[in-house]
Amino acid sequence: MQLAGKNMEKRVRLTVAYDGTNYHGWQVQNNAVTIEGMLNEAITDLLGKQISVIGASRTDAGVHAYGNVAVFDTDSPIPSEKMAGAINARLPEDIRVIKSDEVPLDWHPRHQDCRKTYEYRISMGTVYLPTKRLYAHFTYKNLDIAAMQKACEFFVGEHDFAAFCAADSQAESTVRTIYDLRVLEETNGEVIIRVTGNGFLYNMVRIIAGTLMDVGMGRKKPAEIEGIIASCERRMAGPTLPAKGLTLLGYEYGR
Amino acid sequence: MQLAGKNMEKRVRLTVAYDGTNYHGWQVQNNAVTIEGMLNEAITDLLGKQISVIGASRTDAGVHAYGNVAVFDTDSPIPSEKMAGAINARLPEDIRVIKSDEVPLDWHPRHQDCRKTYEYRISMGTVYLPTKRLYAHFTYKNLDIAAMQKACEFFVGEHDFAAFCAADSQAESTVRTIYDLRVLEETNGEVIIRVTGNGFLYNMVRIIAGTLMDVGMGRKKPAEIEGIIASCERRMAGPTLPAKGLTLLGYEYGR
Repeated sequence: MQLAGKNMEKRVRLTVAYDGTNYHGWQVQNNAVTIEGMLNEAITDLLGKQISVIGASRTDAGVHAYGNVAVFDTDSPIPSEKMAGAINARLPEDIRVIKSDEVPLDWHPRHQDCRKTYEYRISMGTVYLPTKRLYAHFTYKNLDIAAMQKACEFFVGEHDFAAFCAADSQAESTVRTIYDLRVLEETNGEVIIRVTGNGFLYNMVRIIAGTLMDVGMGRKKPAEIEGIIASCERRMAGPTLPAKGLTLLGYEYGR
Repeated sequence: MQLAGKNMEKRVRLTVAYDGTNYHGWQVQNNAVTIEGMLNEAITDLLGKQISVIGASRTDAGVHAYGNVAVFDTDSPIPSEKMAGAINARLPEDIRVIKSDEVPLDWHPRHQDCRKTYEYRISMGTVYLPTKRLYAHFTYKNLDIAAMQKACEFFVGEHDFAAFCAADSQAESTVRTIYDLRVLEETNGEVIIRVTGNGFLYNMVRIIAGTLMDVGMGRKKPAEIEGIIASCERRMAGPTLPAKGLTLLGYEYGR
């Protein structure tokens, strides 16, 4: 039985937003600036003890997030809810801790039932607007949104998504469940592909986006999606779209 | 009478979009990187002759544009419509010539009847999202959009806007006409203030935005706008909001 007291170890969960443009992705690397590395430095500086967070998603270089999740353990007397502000004071403006709260000591951001949502943004137009260049993929083509929307239904459900997984993935199983996939058109000519699932294979969202873009350009028919999934062959699906169009919107955990 | 021929002088108009983040504004300065300076360099490199463009709007550092306008004269055989692509090949990605076309030799971007449209973006929320930090002002407050919309009507029309002009302005007259002013709310929590007029005084759009924000926070009532305009006193209006929330959407010329 653990004794209550000032120095009782607790697990703090951080919800983290970032602009991925200036980072070599989430995961700590030698000689490269990463989101995880910046967080570790900020928290270590705040608490005066070496801290290494455990993250939920190792986003690639250039990928953005509104709600990645990370945890760390500490016996600091700073209330968990106050950690966000104190950490933000030690971070650059392109990384923000949106929220900090306490979770049970056995709570792990990757070992929980969860729903994870990503957004992929494509900008249509005659020119790649400079203010969009870091946050959206661009096409001169006028995408057929209705066809893309029709294609979405074939992805929803539990499937073997081997066809939508980068060749160098080390995943044990390529079966995943997509709860929701939709294509939205904004008034400014941006197309948003929003997908929620229980997890995604390496590059899976960017390959789904590339496949839906093929549909939007008339290179594939919506009904072909079924056969592409069934093939389990990467070459049957569309291209992997660039990282910068991708944003990790967030996680919903069962507990 | 001018003779037609390969070397006939012509005036080329450029419609220019840029992300103002990395520039010291539009206007050429010594020892500072500016949009105008980058355009001059790119066109000079393309044509092999020193070129200095004449711009429509000298946007401040940090202000963005989807459609600023500039002209230059040349006897180059390159068709005016092809200039955009050739210039873009010599520009960084955060400046793009959206369109190039030919205008009469006496056409001047600042000496024409025109309608000019700006947008000011405010992001509401619990945290300043990193991907919005360079393109929107931020507030924790939940702005009263309906009150802001009500305040808009008092601005529309021909008025002396001296109260909405930076103290160091050198404008001869402070009378301007606002054709349209509206406040829009996007689903992502962003508030857009869009204003069209025949011209704007120095900092006028950013002061209008600050005044509307005061209304949205309940610090001013919509009906007070009339008295603020009539006062012609800068101190009666709201604060000048930061440059980065401002985007010059574009110009519509009478000819």
